[in-house]
Amino acid sequence: GSADDSRASKVQELHVYEINERDRGSPAYLRLSQKSVNSLGDLVPFSNKVYSGDLQKRVGITAGICILIQNKPEKKGDRYEAIYSFYFGDYGHLAVQGPYLTYEDTYLAVTGGSGVFEGAYGQVKLQQLIFPFKLFYTFYLKGIKDLPEELLGKPVDPSPSVEPAPAAKACEPGHTISNFTD
Amino acid sequence: GSADDSRASKVQELHVYEINERDRGSPAYLRLSQKSVNSLGDLVPFSNKVYSGDLQKRVGITAGICILIQNKPEKKGDRYEAIYSFYFGDYGHLAVQGPYLTYEDTYLAVTGGSGVFEGAYGQVKLQQLIFPFKLFYTFYLKGIKDLPEELLGKPVDPSPSVEPAPAAKACEPGHTISNFTD
Amino acid sequence: GSADDSRASKVQELHVYEINERDRGSPAYLRLSQKSVNSLGDLVPFSNKVYSGDLQKRVGITAGICILIQNKPEKKGDRYEAIYSFYFGDYGHLAVQGPYLTYEDTYLAVTGGSGVFEGAYGQVKLQQLIFPFKLFYTFYLKGIKDLPEELLGKPVDPSPSVEPAPAAKACEPGHTISNFTD
Repeated sequence: GSADDSRASKVQELHVYEINERDRGSPAYLRLSQKSVNSLGDLVPFSNKVYSGDLQKRVGITAGICILIQNKPEKKGDRYEAIYSFYFGDYGHLAVQGPYLTYEDTYLAVTGGSGVFEGAYGQVKLQQLIFPFKLFYTFYLKGIKDLPEELLGKPVDPSPSVEPAPAAKACEPGHTISNFTD
Repeated sequence: GSADDSRASKVQELHVYEINERDRGSPAYLRLSQKSVNSLGDLVPFSNKVYSGDLQKRVGITAGICILIQNKPEKKGDRYEAIYSFYFGDYGHLAVQGPYLTYEDTYLAVTGGSGVFEGAYGQVKLQQLIFPFKLFYTFYLKGIKDLPEELLGKPVDPSPSVEPAPAAKACEPGHTISNFTD
Repeated sequence: GSADDSRASKVQELHVYEINERDRGSPAYLRLSQKSVNSLGDLVPFSNKVYSGDLQKRVGITAGICILIQNKPEKKGDRYEAIYSFYFGDYGHLAVQGPYLTYEDTYLAVTGGSGVFEGAYGQVKLQQLIFPFKLFYTFYLKGIKDLPEELLGKPVDPSPSVEPAPAAKACEPGHTISNFTD
């Protein structure tokens, strides 16, 4: 029926890379705990660049905040609660919330979206490649229509050495999506 | 079937005005970036009044936070990531997340709700009429039962000069919803 | 049909206790308003322990932030906008957003989840037992498969005097869920 069509439970995988090219003043580590070790009270607004999984197109940015929850000395890392969105130019955005651990992969909740992502739900796997500069995400999306082809290119296997195509990094014609978010 | 009934994909439009009457100490611009220009690191908790789209009833408040993502000198404005809720007294609330640009309209994700908005999903269009004091929203809601009639009055056409009915502004009997949020 | 199965509208109740045992440095009350009375501008990151409703098992933690919206002298309390997650070890997490009032029970929106909570929606009732140290939650969850039995024990009736089983508090074998979040 039509209800099933519009709230499809089919899973669509979407891969993106998030890369901090150190040109956006991000992250802004706010040491509001006023402690020397990362502690509850610290807040970390951030915004990085987002590329398609095949690294051929610049699609947009991330934007949001990480809330420091706990320093884990035994893991040499931190637990954050992350609340942010992924922006895809004219296609719209995806909102997510969940755990960001600096020392292992996690799954966050997809809480909604706009544009072609209107009504999205599901989860997203976060894989850290180079802390905190290079991350790979696999979205498992439900509730939306078929995604645009240009977002579905075969992803480059995630590794610390991956780089966006130079033309994508330079945002050259044909290497961005329409009105990519910047 | 019953599953379709409870997670209806029918779209219901809901219009509200958000108005800052400068009596709630909002917004609280926290210049945590410690820079003279709005910059990543700045946070802006806020709470404004919400009126029905026909401006005949006070329904409640907004409550949440805007995270400054980027100052856009060429647009003479800013990009924020906005995370907040709309409160509708006894009817419950709607939670949203997405882009707030001070220089153009945007769509945010509806991430959930309570009360008559339990299970809500979809998106909401944000139209700015007077920055940052007067905004008009069109929710495109799915997943919920038929909305109460008193929320569905014909909206006043959005323009910078619109004002709530004086009786609504004064919260007079018959010009608020039940237990409007304040 | 398969769509109905995967986005079931059946309501599953899940009860948990959130307890602040004062050993996590939480909450971090950030008086960013710089006012002597709690005011818009104040932010409160927090993280407390979570136990199963029968108080027999430690399941994890909460993690997130409360945004001070308004001090209510007539209620001797505050309104916050709360954005946080509940962590359940290997089972995943639930994300929520909505009102936290220090003087009465509220309902928040469930905005999503991961793991066994992937695709969760609905609402959650928050009951405060001892401000701000002991809370009882009843989740009304839709969109997910049948929850694990060990999360569904008969809840202890909420009262200010309830305490986790000593073995759960001590995280002894058999009194935690798998890889409980800490």
